[in-house]
Amino acid sequence: MITMFSSQTYQKRRAALGKEMASGVALFMGNGETPYNYPANAYRFRQDSSFLYCFGINEPDMAALADFDEGIAYLFGNESTLDDVIWMGEQPSMADRANAAGVDNYFPLSALAEMVDRFMRQGRNIHYLPPYRGETRLQLFRLLGIHPDEQREKASEALIRAVVKMRLVKEPQEIDQIEQSMNTAYRMHTHVMRHARAGVTEQELAGAVEGIAAADGAVSFPVILTVNGQTLHNHYHGNTLRNGQLLLTDAGSETAMGYASDITRTIPVGGKFDERQRLIYQTVLNANLKAIELSRPNVAYRDVHLAVARVIAGGLQQAGLMKGDMDDAVAQGAHSLFFPHGLGHAMGLDVHDMEGMGENYVGYDDTVRRSTQFGLSSVRFGRKLEAGYVVTDEPGIYFIPALMNRWEADRKYEQFINYGALTAYRDFGGIRIEDDLLITPEGCRVLGKPIPKSVEELENICK
Amino acid sequence: MITMFSSQTYQKRRAALGKEMASGVALFMGNGETPYNYPANAYRFRQDSSFLYCFGINEPDMAALADFDEGIAYLFGNESTLDDVIWMGEQPSMADRANAAGVDNYFPLSALAEMVDRFMRQGRNIHYLPPYRGETRLQLFRLLGIHPDEQREKASEALIRAVVKMRLVKEPQEIDQIEQSMNTAYRMHTHVMRHARAGVTEQELAGAVEGIAAADGAVSFPVILTVNGQTLHNHYHGNTLRNGQLLLTDAGSETAMGYASDITRTIPVGGKFDERQRLIYQTVLNANLKAIELSRPNVAYRDVHLAVARVIAGGLQQAGLMKGDMDDAVAQGAHSLFFPHGLGHAMGLDVHDMEGMGENYVGYDDTVRRSTQFGLSSVRFGRKLEAGYVVTDEPGIYFIPALMNRWEADRKYEQFINYGALTAYRDFGGIRIEDDLLITPEGCRVLGKPIPKSVEELENICK
Repeated sequence: MITMFSSQTYQKRRAALGKEMASGVALFMGNGETPYNYPANAYRFRQDSSFLYCFGINEPDMAALADFDEGIAYLFGNESTLDDVIWMGEQPSMADRANAAGVDNYFPLSALAEMVDRFMRQGRNIHYLPPYRGETRLQLFRLLGIHPDEQREKASEALIRAVVKMRLVKEPQEIDQIEQSMNTAYRMHTHVMRHARAGVTEQELAGAVEGIAAADGAVSFPVILTVNGQTLHNHYHGNTLRNGQLLLTDAGSETAMGYASDITRTIPVGGKFDERQRLIYQTVLNANLKAIELSRPNVAYRDVHLAVARVIAGGLQQAGLMKGDMDDAVAQGAHSLFFPHGLGHAMGLDVHDMEGMGENYVGYDDTVRRSTQFGLSSVRFGRKLEAGYVVTDEPGIYFIPALMNRWEADRKYEQFINYGALTAYRDFGGIRIEDDLLITPEGCRVLGKPIPKSVEELENICK
Repeated sequence: MITMFSSQTYQKRRAALGKEMASGVALFMGNGETPYNYPANAYRFRQDSSFLYCFGINEPDMAALADFDEGIAYLFGNESTLDDVIWMGEQPSMADRANAAGVDNYFPLSALAEMVDRFMRQGRNIHYLPPYRGETRLQLFRLLGIHPDEQREKASEALIRAVVKMRLVKEPQEIDQIEQSMNTAYRMHTHVMRHARAGVTEQELAGAVEGIAAADGAVSFPVILTVNGQTLHNHYHGNTLRNGQLLLTDAGSETAMGYASDITRTIPVGGKFDERQRLIYQTVLNANLKAIELSRPNVAYRDVHLAVARVIAGGLQQAGLMKGDMDDAVAQGAHSLFFPHGLGHAMGLDVHDMEGMGENYVGYDDTVRRSTQFGLSSVRFGRKLEAGYVVTDEPGIYFIPALMNRWEADRKYEQFINYGALTAYRDFGGIRIEDDLLITPEGCRVLGKPIPKSVEELENICK
C-alpha cells in the first residue's frame, strides 16, 4: 500500500466531518480502474480525492459508509484472489486496509448494497458527493436507484459544504506533500528551460516533462507546453521551436499520495526576450508579484484578482494597447480581452481543488458571489482567504486573434482598447506566470524551491 | 486534426464492412474525455479503436451511424464555440472532419438521438459494439434504452465478427504505423538497458520510459518495469535496483494515430547473468525463437504455443526443475506452473487487439476453441494464423511463490515437477521476452529494428 498519513489522521478527519454533518449517512465511492481502450487496459489508477482524504486508501474498487449518528465507519472491498497475486503481486488484505484507515468494520463489496438498502429502509438520509465518472454513476444508479442524469443535482449540499470547508484548510502534513510535488515541478520546469532551443519539438519536451512527473507519481493534469500560449489550455504539441518564440509551459505533478503542484513559466526560445516581449513579460511578472504582496487572511481573492488586473491594464497602457482610465477599464472588464481568466484556484488533492463538487462551493461563499461579467465570471476563486488555504497565482496576457476579431467587430470597449495597435501583436502569443501560494497567518508564502521567473534568471538559464 | 489515412481508406473499410453485414444499421460511439479526478481534468484522450478504424477521427464526442442497407454513413459532432477557441485553439470544423472521414452527411450531436429513434421506429436492427466505458454505457442507455448491465450481452455478434475479421488483417499502411511505434519501443527499451544499474530506482526508469513514449504519442498500456518479474502485470515501481537482479520491462508505445507496440525484455542489473539466470534466460529465448520459426499462415497459434511450452519444459528439465516425459507434461499442463499464460495476442489499434469485443471472437474461431485447462485457458490467441495478422510472441518462465506453494500443497503434477529443487528458485523472479510478429505469406517477420535480446547483446549494452 502506498504510504499514507497515520490512521489517526483519517479518524480525526471523519470525526470532524461528523461534527459538521451532525446526522445522516454518507456514502463515499472510491474510484475503480478506468478503461483506456478495452476493459482490462486501464489508465493509471486515480483514487477519488475525497475518499482519499477521509480514508487514505489509494486502491481501486473500495467504498465506505459513515454513519454520523452512530459515529461508525464501514469499509467495503474485496480480498485478493490467487489470480490477483499471480498477475498483480501480493495485495494488502482488507484487515490491513481497514487498519490503515482507522476503521473497525469492513466487509466485501457485495455487502454494500445490502447495508445501503437497510439504511434507506430505516428512512436514513444517504448523502453522497457529485459523481464525475460514468462508472461511479452506474454504481450509484444500482445502489440508490437515482437516474445518472439526476445524480449531480441530487448530491448532498450539506456533505459538499462540510468536505469543502475541511479540505480548503491544509494540514501541515498536506503542505509537506505539496512541497514534495513542488520539487518535482521544479525539475520539470528547469528541464524545459535547459532544453528548449531552436529545432527541439514541443512533443519531445512535453514527453520529458511527463517522464519526470511519472518518476515521482504522475502529472496532475495534461501538460500544456506550447509556442501558442494564447490558447489557454493548448494540448497540441506538434510544433518545432524557433528562436524568438515564447514557450509557455503549464505543468505540475502529483505525489504518489495525490497532492498536486501547478506551475506556469513562459520562456524565450533562444535565451533572449525581445523588447516587446520583455515589456509584456515584466507586466505579467509584476502582476504575479502583486498577488503575492496582497494575499493574506481576510482579503477576498477576487479583490486580489482586480488589483492584479489593474497592474496588467497599466502595463498594456504603457505598451500603447489600452487607453483611458485604467481603474474604469478594469471595473468595466475591458482588460479581459487580454486576461480572460481568473487569477487562480484552490489546489490540494485536486489541482483545481474540489472543482468536481461545484466551483462555487469552493471559490465563493455567502459574502462573495460569482460575477456574470466576461472575464470576472471566470474567476474560479473569489472568496476571502484564510490561513491554510493553498491557491494558485497565475496572471497572464494573451493575444487571441479570434477574440480580438470578435471584440473589434463588436466595437467593444473602444474607449479603452487601441484596436489599431493590436495588429502588430496578432502573432505575439501569450504569457502566463503561475506560482502556488500558501496563505499564512501573516500573509502568504510561495511554495517550493523558487523556479526561475525574473527576466534575468530566465535569460540566464535558457540558452 | 492528427494525421489520418486518406478518406478513401475509411470509405473502403466501411464498404467492406457493409458487405460483411449486408443489412441493418450500426451505431459507432466515439469516446469522450475521461475524467481523472473531476469533470474538467481529463486523462489523455483515447479514441475508441473501432471508431478510429472506420472513421479515423481522433477527437472526443463524435458518433456515427452506418446504414448498411442504403450504404450511407452519418457523422455526429458539434462545431467548436468561441470559448473552445479561446481555451483549446482552432478546432477542425465538422465539414473538415466529415471530409477527412469520407462522409457526406454530418449533423450536430443533438441529432443523433432523433435519427436513432427514427431507425428504431422503422423496425431497423441497431447494431453496436460492446461498450467498455461508463460514459459510453450511459449514452447507449439514453439512446437505445438498454440497461447498462445488459448492454454487453445485447451487443451485436454480427458486427463484432465483421469488425474483428477486418481489423485482424492489417493493411500495409497499418504495418507502417506499427513499425513507427516499434521505433519508439526500441528507444524505450534501449534506454532501460543503458541506464539500469545498481542504485537506480524502478520509478526513475519507468518515468523515463513513459516520457519517451509520450514524446511520440503515448504508452500503449501502463509500463511494467520490475525486479519482480514473476508478478505478471506488476505496476509497482518502488524498488531500487541491486546488482545481480533481473529487471523485466514490458512496455510499448502507441503512435498519435493509435497503433501499438508491445515489447518485453529482461536484463541483468550490473551487466552479467549468473549461471542459473543464463540457463533460464536462454530457455526463454529459445522459446521465443521457436515461435518465430513456426509461425506462418494456416498454423494454429495454439499449436505454436504448445511447441513453445515444450521448449520451456525441456529447459526446465535441464535445470533439474521438471522430470519425466516433457511431451506428456505439456499435454497435461504441468509446465504452466512456470508459464501460466499464453504465448501471445493480436496487436494493432489496441495492444490486446479488440479484446474489448470479447477475447474469444478475436483469438478463436469455429475450428480452434478455447481450452479450460489452467495455463492453456489463458491462451488469448489460439486460432489459425493468416498473412497480415500481427501477434505477440512472449514466452516466459516465472517462479511465483504463491503458486508454487499452492501446487506443492495440492501435490499437483508431482510426477513432472521437482518441488524439492524449487526452494532455491523462490527468489529468482521471472523472465519474459516479447516480440511482435507480422504473419507474411511465407512465414513471419519480427517487426521493428531488432532490440537486443541475446545473452551477448544484453551483456554488451547493460553495463
